[in-house]
Amino acid sequence: MSCSQFTYTRRVSFSETDLAGIVHFSNFFRYMEEAEHAFYRSLGYSVHAMPGDEDGSTVGWPRVHAEADYRRPLRFEEEFEVELLIEEIRSKTITYKLNFWKTEDGRELAAHGKLVVVCVAFDSGERKGMKAVSIPTHFREKIEATTGSST
Amino acid sequence: MSCSQFTYTRRVSFSETDLAGIVHFSNFFRYMEEAEHAFYRSLGYSVHAMPGDEDGSTVGWPRVHAEADYRRPLRFEEEFEVELLIEEIRSKTITYKLNFWKTEDGRELAAHGKLVVVCVAFDSGERKGMKAVSIPTHFREKIEATTGSST
Amino acid sequence: MSCSQFTYTRRVSFSETDLAGIVHFSNFFRYMEEAEHAFYRSLGYSVHAMPGDEDGSTVGWPRVHAEADYRRPLRFEEEFEVELLIEEIRSKTITYKLNFWKTEDGRELAAHGKLVVVCVAFDSGERKGMKAVSIPTHFREKIEATTGSST
Amino acid sequence: MSCSQFTYTRRVSFSETDLAGIVHFSNFFRYMEEAEHAFYRSLGYSVHAMPGDEDGSTVGWPRVHAEADYRRPLRFEEEFEVELLIEEIRSKTITYKLNFWKTEDGRELAAHGKLVVVCVAFDSGERKGMKAVSIPTHFREKIEATTGSST
Repeated sequence: MSCSQFTYTRRVSFSETDLAGIVHFSNFFRYMEEAEHAFYRSLGYSVHAMPGDEDGSTVGWPRVHAEADYRRPLRFEEEFEVELLIEEIRSKTITYKLNFWKTEDGRELAAHGKLVVVCVAFDSGERKGMKAVSIPTHFREKIEATTGSST
Repeated sequence: MSCSQFTYTRRVSFSETDLAGIVHFSNFFRYMEEAEHAFYRSLGYSVHAMPGDEDGSTVGWPRVHAEADYRRPLRFEEEFEVELLIEEIRSKTITYKLNFWKTEDGRELAAHGKLVVVCVAFDSGERKGMKAVSIPTHFREKIEATTGSST
Repeated sequence: MSCSQFTYTRRVSFSETDLAGIVHFSNFFRYMEEAEHAFYRSLGYSVHAMPGDEDGSTVGWPRVHAEADYRRPLRFEEEFEVELLIEEIRSKTITYKLNFWKTEDGRELAAHGKLVVVCVAFDSGERKGMKAVSIPTHFREKIEATTGSST
Repeated sequence: MSCSQFTYTRRVSFSETDLAGIVHFSNFFRYMEEAEHAFYRSLGYSVHAMPGDEDGSTVGWPRVHAEADYRRPLRFEEEFEVELLIEEIRSKTITYKLNFWKTEDGRELAAHGKLVVVCVAFDSGERKGMKAVSIPTHFREKIEATTGSST
């Protein structure tokens, strides 16, 4: 699969830089998550209240893996794009690939990374107990419609 | 009142600096809260599970006011002290005064500030509805024992 | 003075919430600064490279005071407005007043606060030594044109 | 190699949690870096002022890769250990492996991850231009003494 899904545009805030004068490496993971959540919104969902397949149930999406490779720094006030691609959908997990593009002076890759998220159901309303469950059908269908894939 | 209560020692992390090479001003508020929570632990409490006066109830401490005055910057890896003083206890609120001391080369004031926190009770276990309530007696007594004050 | 200058719109990110389910109080200070920097951009400036009155010089704007009063929480994915007003311009300092408006369901004040920033010049290119200087004339004129004030 | 180098102990701060009630996944990368920098301090170095092999030169350690696998959440006020191991030292890069141990109720793995850092020299004092260089001899020797390895 791996077709382009979604682009999220962002500007670097002062508080996201460090004394090396560039975006702190941990903030790329916050940007990844912002892009993921904006992607869900683009499909009509909020990550914090996504309905499950059963009436009244909700699912959540904790991260099980995250990684990034850094190529070029992002600097204060720089605008950049986060390109979100779906690398793999399995029964209970989604692997997102994320490319960070510098756009102010040509198009250069600042970094790329991955997020693997797992679909979970919560026990009886509270969020303490949870177990991995199948991705809700309505959500899977929306993603597959976007990718033009039958997976 | 305003007697010294508690000292919390901390070292500046890299991710807390910004491109000006110093601790970002917003992080002083995180340090204030860390000192406040460490103060609660020193009295045997966790801010997130403090019992109220009634059996089975818990109280929380949302902030209603926060302020800081900045004098000298804190730098990467610098050790500093946060001195927490109780400026005022009223029936439902506490005003903490916080002094940030540089200690590596003499003792200089880096910043000082205030946190005003209000004691609240939560409706029936969930944290959405809440109302201001009197500070629990057991907690007030512990604070007054520490300050040697009869208020 | 205190006329409305600028409005900055923002959405709450997941990483800005805390376990109380709301935006951590320290993040309001990051939002204040984002609004301030966006205001400078709206006037054609970057806070990190603002020219001084003398050729080749640059000025910076460290914070000397920051405060916030909290009224209603901001929640995950909520859109809000930060309204930036100029409360006072003196020869070397600016006091900004900032109002945080919830906008999704009527217009309610979430918080309000202040930032006092001082104009400084840096010694010979590096940012370690600095001294307070008069606000550059070109910048003061732009602000006064915006406010319609002769101060 | 992969012998244990260093253990860094930390307590979860309130501002590091998110509305899911657990440490935000991005903060594990900040903890990794804190452990790395504490490891350098244990050898007598600061990451921000490490001398190079040539007189007067300094080297820096930008990250080129970071990853984490999440197993069990860390919660507010929980104490945990970050175990830092050296997985590989090459001529210009070091790969650190980091294990996050929950310690309050038995010893369970919360997460594990990796940081790959590259040794760079800066052009003439400023930090903009930089190129990968060999790890300084004095630093390599200290690490090898710690690991008991001849690599």
